Amino acid sequence: MIKCSNRSDIPTFLALEGMRKAQELEAAGHDIIHLEIGQPSTAAPEAVTQALVASVADTGTHGYSLPLGVPALRDAIAQHYQSQYGYNTDRRALAVTVGSSTAFALAFLTAFDVGDKVALPTPGYPAYRNLMLALGIEPVALPARAEEGWMPALEEMEKWDELPAGLIIASPHNPTGVVLSEAELKEICDWCHKHKVRLISDEIYHGLAYDKPTQTAALYNEDAIIISGFSKYYSMTGWRLGWMVMPCDLRGTIENLLANLFISSPTMNQLGAVAAFSATEELDAHVARYRENRDILLYGLHPAFLGNHAPCDGAFYLYADVSALTDDSLSFAKALIEEEGVAVTSGVDFDPEKGHHFVRLSFAGKTADMREAVRRINRFTERLLSPQQKSA
Amino acid sequence: MIKCSNRSDIPTFLALEGMRKAQELEAAGHDIIHLEIGQPSTAAPEAVTQALVASVADTGTHGYSLPLGVPALRDAIAQHYQSQYGYNTDRRALAVTVGSSTAFALAFLTAFDVGDKVALPTPGYPAYRNLMLALGIEPVALPARAEEGWMPALEEMEKWDELPAGLIIASPHNPTGVVLSEAELKEICDWCHKHKVRLISDEIYHGLAYDKPTQTAALYNEDAIIISGFSKYYSMTGWRLGWMVMPCDLRGTIENLLANLFISSPTMNQLGAVAAFSATEELDAHVARYRENRDILLYGLHPAFLGNHAPCDGAFYLYADVSALTDDSLSFAKALIEEEGVAVTSGVDFDPEKGHHFVRLSFAGKTADMREAVRRINRFTERLLSPQQKSA
Repeated sequence: MIKCSNRSDIPTFLALEGMRKAQELEAAGHDIIHLEIGQPSTAAPEAVTQALVASVADTGTHGYSLPLGVPALRDAIAQHYQSQYGYNTDRRALAVTVGSSTAFALAFLTAFDVGDKVALPTPGYPAYRNLMLALGIEPVALPARAEEGWMPALEEMEKWDELPAGLIIASPHNPTGVVLSEAELKEICDWCHKHKVRLISDEIYHGLAYDKPTQTAALYNEDAIIISGFSKYYSMTGWRLGWMVMPCDLRGTIENLLANLFISSPTMNQLGAVAAFSATEELDAHVARYRENRDILLYGLHPAFLGNHAPCDGAFYLYADVSALTDDSLSFAKALIEEEGVAVTSGVDFDPEKGHHFVRLSFAGKTADMREAVRRINRFTERLLSPQQKSA
Repeated sequence: MIKCSNRSDIPTFLALEGMRKAQELEAAGHDIIHLEIGQPSTAAPEAVTQALVASVADTGTHGYSLPLGVPALRDAIAQHYQSQYGYNTDRRALAVTVGSSTAFALAFLTAFDVGDKVALPTPGYPAYRNLMLALGIEPVALPARAEEGWMPALEEMEKWDELPAGLIIASPHNPTGVVLSEAELKEICDWCHKHKVRLISDEIYHGLAYDKPTQTAALYNEDAIIISGFSKYYSMTGWRLGWMVMPCDLRGTIENLLANLFISSPTMNQLGAVAAFSATEELDAHVARYRENRDILLYGLHPAFLGNHAPCDGAFYLYADVSALTDDSLSFAKALIEEEGVAVTSGVDFDPEKGHHFVRLSFAGKTADMREAVRRINRFTERLLSPQQKSA
């Protein structure tokens, strides 16, 4: 046998496995409600699509952009940080990336060496952990569960044998929907600064907070790597465009590594995205729908299915605690799609240790789908309840 | 100071530095001829652009595709292997990637561990080496210079203390324009099979061979990872779409790692690319122009500039041996753009050891630019010639 690498033997990204399973069932004629994948069901803003279509009429847009991205887009992102957060930056600090995913790869490679430990609030987005493992970084779970009020337990890290080289946070959070207050964000930023721990702040769900404002970590920690993009609030997942606000010390290495990893992000997609920041009215209508969707789930789903669910204050995820119904959320999710045609993601993807008691539902879809999902899930739940639970 | 990684301290991708320098001079009002960057000056085929524009009218195309790519595109690529090479494959073996660049990242991560040695015919494309270094792989230069008839010296590897874990080949080759004959390709494939060395065959310049046919290594080595894409022959660099033909043993790990590294390639770009395989007439006209451009350079440039140049049988590069004029091709390239406004790339990017005697010229641009480049380069060359050289 010819050699394969050991490092690529990483956990399967179950959410994507689930998406494939759901698509297969759908192709076989089943009526599937998609609550498994974290993407809007809507298209990009009309102005963005028009800008893309206009751009491809020009021969010059079919070639590479500068590695860090089209200057007009980086200027528009800088302007966004000024108007949204009162944070001054400029194009030199900004890198456009292929989705936020490649921004994580660039951040991990430029900030951490093989063998470095990085703290990962758990539950959390599985691709962080999987990508770290492939790159030789050791992810260390930092509890951020109900017991910790769904917040990363900073004081935990001070008890470890050594401090981690880095800490990743995400607010609004996937899968818990936790939104950090400004004071909480500042506390984390200060802790990282004090302990010389590199902070990576995943801000991809900014714009999707239902009760509190969101603030950027760039304001409070100048060494932080800020990662965001167009996939969520901007409803442009398939466009594969993200960005980074780069701290001064990493700019040169990120630019160089980016050029070697993917040369540049797709040029015409970038030219389209310039229009995204002026599509606020269209995009805020999506947010109003997500809020309605969330409320339909929270008020409609059976209490035994919701359990001690996570806050659900931001992003478009409900992290339901199904421990009253199962100790194996993977089988539970499989039964739910097979019996009722509702695709959800097992919590095992987000929390290898305690995720077997949770499932994640994305409410980025259509409102009618949420209502139907409630009917189907409650029917499924009723069948699982014990006589004692039913009478309680 | 907060920690940065050591592994990201990789060599600068000089060709992209050169592109930036040329763009800056142009922005400052200088008249620059761009021979520095390997991309067509033309747009994507008209049918491809139309397919993209049509696709974005559909909401469904704005979301992620399956990680391995849009099935219709993978089917079209499979059909291309059948009709172009007589090689039978199907979508299960095909992964669509963000340019061929991310295909290399996936290949390196799934085939090689930290510390593995991989043989790299030198001169060669610098991003192979740079990316390997960032991923902890040790690139080992395998001579493929004039002395070796511009062919990778396979027998060299058998003299090494240990065989490499992998070998990368590229035909047509960047920067030398070497096109392997079918017999030579088969010899390399067999050698790798015999010695259990993983072959990575970079076939991104297929379709751009001026005298010989090109053949895929997939026909001769079932463990090989084949990498190609839409950037060169298909004139779609800025679309950032490549592909891999995956050997059986790596399919699962590549798919999983791909999902974690970039989720999917841009969906609407993929839907556009489906039309690329039927745009042969339009694309072959570009190839005819590249051939004409090549001949203008080869027959027009001063012999002291061309020197013992590489074969120039494929791709769109002339690798000129300027050792009669300089021992420092970096300064030489800098003087050429400053004095005559012609941007070329120093060979140091492609061959750290002997590249100081070479520069690479891309002839993917306009024919009129080639004629003007010849005038300017010859004027520059004349100024550098010694009295003896002039009288010779």
